[in-house]
Amino acid sequence: MGLLVRVAQRSRHMTFSSVRLISSFRADELQIRLTNTPSVKPDNDKLKFGAHTSDHLLEVDWTEKHGWSAPVIRPVEPLRIHPAAKVLHYACELFEGMKAYRCVDGKIRMFRPMENMERMAASAGRSALPAFDTTELLKCIKKLIAVDQEWVPYSEKCSLYIRPTFIGTEPALGVTYSNEAKLFVIVGPVGPYFPTGMKPVGLLADPQYVRAWPGGCGNFKMGSNYAPTVSVQATAAKLGCQQVLWLYGDDHEMTEVGTMNLFVYWINEQGEEELVTPPLESGLILPGVTRKSLLNLAREWNEFKVSEQTLTMATFVKAVNEGRVKEVFGAGTACIVCPVNRILYQGEELHLRTMDDPEHLTQRFYKEINDIHFYRKPHEWMEPIEEDVSEAVRKFSAQ
Amino acid sequence: MGLLVRVAQRSRHMTFSSVRLISSFRADELQIRLTNTPSVKPDNDKLKFGAHTSDHLLEVDWTEKHGWSAPVIRPVEPLRIHPAAKVLHYACELFEGMKAYRCVDGKIRMFRPMENMERMAASAGRSALPAFDTTELLKCIKKLIAVDQEWVPYSEKCSLYIRPTFIGTEPALGVTYSNEAKLFVIVGPVGPYFPTGMKPVGLLADPQYVRAWPGGCGNFKMGSNYAPTVSVQATAAKLGCQQVLWLYGDDHEMTEVGTMNLFVYWINEQGEEELVTPPLESGLILPGVTRKSLLNLAREWNEFKVSEQTLTMATFVKAVNEGRVKEVFGAGTACIVCPVNRILYQGEELHLRTMDDPEHLTQRFYKEINDIHFYRKPHEWMEPIEEDVSEAVRKFSAQ
Repeated sequence: MGLLVRVAQRSRHMTFSSVRLISSFRADELQIRLTNTPSVKPDNDKLKFGAHTSDHLLEVDWTEKHGWSAPVIRPVEPLRIHPAAKVLHYACELFEGMKAYRCVDGKIRMFRPMENMERMAASAGRSALPAFDTTELLKCIKKLIAVDQEWVPYSEKCSLYIRPTFIGTEPALGVTYSNEAKLFVIVGPVGPYFPTGMKPVGLLADPQYVRAWPGGCGNFKMGSNYAPTVSVQATAAKLGCQQVLWLYGDDHEMTEVGTMNLFVYWINEQGEEELVTPPLESGLILPGVTRKSLLNLAREWNEFKVSEQTLTMATFVKAVNEGRVKEVFGAGTACIVCPVNRILYQGEELHLRTMDDPEHLTQRFYKEINDIHFYRKPHEWMEPIEEDVSEAVRKFSAQ
Repeated sequence: MGLLVRVAQRSRHMTFSSVRLISSFRADELQIRLTNTPSVKPDNDKLKFGAHTSDHLLEVDWTEKHGWSAPVIRPVEPLRIHPAAKVLHYACELFEGMKAYRCVDGKIRMFRPMENMERMAASAGRSALPAFDTTELLKCIKKLIAVDQEWVPYSEKCSLYIRPTFIGTEPALGVTYSNEAKLFVIVGPVGPYFPTGMKPVGLLADPQYVRAWPGGCGNFKMGSNYAPTVSVQATAAKLGCQQVLWLYGDDHEMTEVGTMNLFVYWINEQGEEELVTPPLESGLILPGVTRKSLLNLAREWNEFKVSEQTLTMATFVKAVNEGRVKEVFGAGTACIVCPVNRILYQGEELHLRTMDDPEHLTQRFYKEINDIHFYRKPHEWMEPIEEDVSEAVRKFSAQ
């Protein structure tokens, strides 16, 4: 990889603690090396989430001494990581999850990508990883999608999952910021979350397991939020639940569902029809792009009250018992929405209505967002990529 | 690496959630491949913590399908890790920190290594990584130290730092347990934590930053506990403090110091001389080996009261103001003990006595543990390694 580094015009600040002025890599310095051995693409009906990687990845390296190197698109191969690298010991890592769709007009588009870019920059600040120009990263990601455009499924049920990742690679065991880092992006086709129609899930709500807490990092997409959840998820599975409903505090605040944001659609105590999701201010909630989009849509519809407020289990159980809870669902990039029909809480099962009826809100959101994704309903949220990469490839081949 | 896998006699259970019967790797299957290009060892007076890696590492791979492979000692080279590996996204990783010393009788010994092995097994269970036979791992680590025995400093001030690490390597983006894993151990020489005599540190105690919480993983040595602390540490540095005093809860419980356990030596409210450290039951405290050893020593001395109990800032500040706090220090593998002379709390500086006097408890602990480490005071805590590896090397060379 070339070590040529140019100083970008813009510089950015760390968002959390230390203020370091750092130049960014630039998309116009992108180098492309294509594979000679492209993989066979999996059938659309056999796609498993996160199991398939396309032929190429995007990679940009940073060192404190030399700043950012030129971004490179190259064949997917194992990364060479020193065994003392901070990412392997202190979880110096963060990621994003986003998608691109092959729309009904044949164009490939991404869903609100700058939302993910800005969240990634915030996670980098919290992780003491270097800043970068988010618009430059998005340009590079679009090039990667263009290079691997045949990996975007020809299907209105499937999509290309995009995983930007940022790791600290300095080979030194001190618990401090990493003076070397690698930003990379892998992509791969994913199938529909519900191949045979929406399937509601059951949740384990046990206050002994806590995902995030005030003063922690629950509102950033850092790897460290996920490792602690894996064995809790296994516990939920043993109890016949598909996901965990994460509670917090003595009053058992309902915070998130598995790796999704939580939504409750109910008649509130004032008798109003209301969609509620926990607020971001607590620092316990990941600011999900799907969460934000559903709030945007519901407020635009203006058919019922839309609130970001704390929900406790006591309030919720009361509402269930009084027949006021209409729907509960998780929201995230993988599934868009995921209905909940059962919550196991303090040894009792709360049964919730399911929502196969297309009139139901969960279904309506699902259809609306899907229509936007595939551009059946054109929307400014969808951002096209430039499919033609021949110039960039030619430029590289000439070097 | 050979893929020969034999089924061990013993099998072990996951400690946390799922119960999986898993065979272990075995030390008698160890394969050794020596480097042809040994590195130049750094001077003892230029050692920086965690910056130097010896010539060889120990590596053992596991897959759900094939179980553990034979352990291998091989030259240190970058690990080849798939960009979709769970360790890079979800912090599927844990580690240990331990030391070996070149003792005054010329033998190399480790300090209480089974304590670290058992804690590592517990961390693996919490991380949904596979179980292994801890005694077999220790045997393999001893072989690694024997192979790199010239890296154990010839000095009564330096030691060999040992870093067992365990990562989930499955290349799949689902947030679930890893069906592939790699356990590896690197070692490297480290200098004295205080090259020019014990230097007290100042602490930032700000309740807005929280290291661990009930229902989390603060009592396991998982990578996910560390990433969130790095930018907080940077904030402390900006305020002129060397470390963070981690507080928890509305009553500002004092929990840990940086990456160390906390000790307070004071006259308690009942007028008794007492050594206090926060209790393990809360789940907020890492069960440190140095912590345990200091408690063991103090209880053996039987000269003052020794307590594991919760300390709040209110109680502590009152004691400081009443002149009852004699010493405050952190305890850990890197420094043994680290005296604290200043705490910045709610905009005010609490000044604590420093302890240059060898009569002081911090100094006494430091000397006592050092005497044990270097076998000036022979102690059962010190476990010798078998320095002769010629047979193992011969066996490998013959293959």
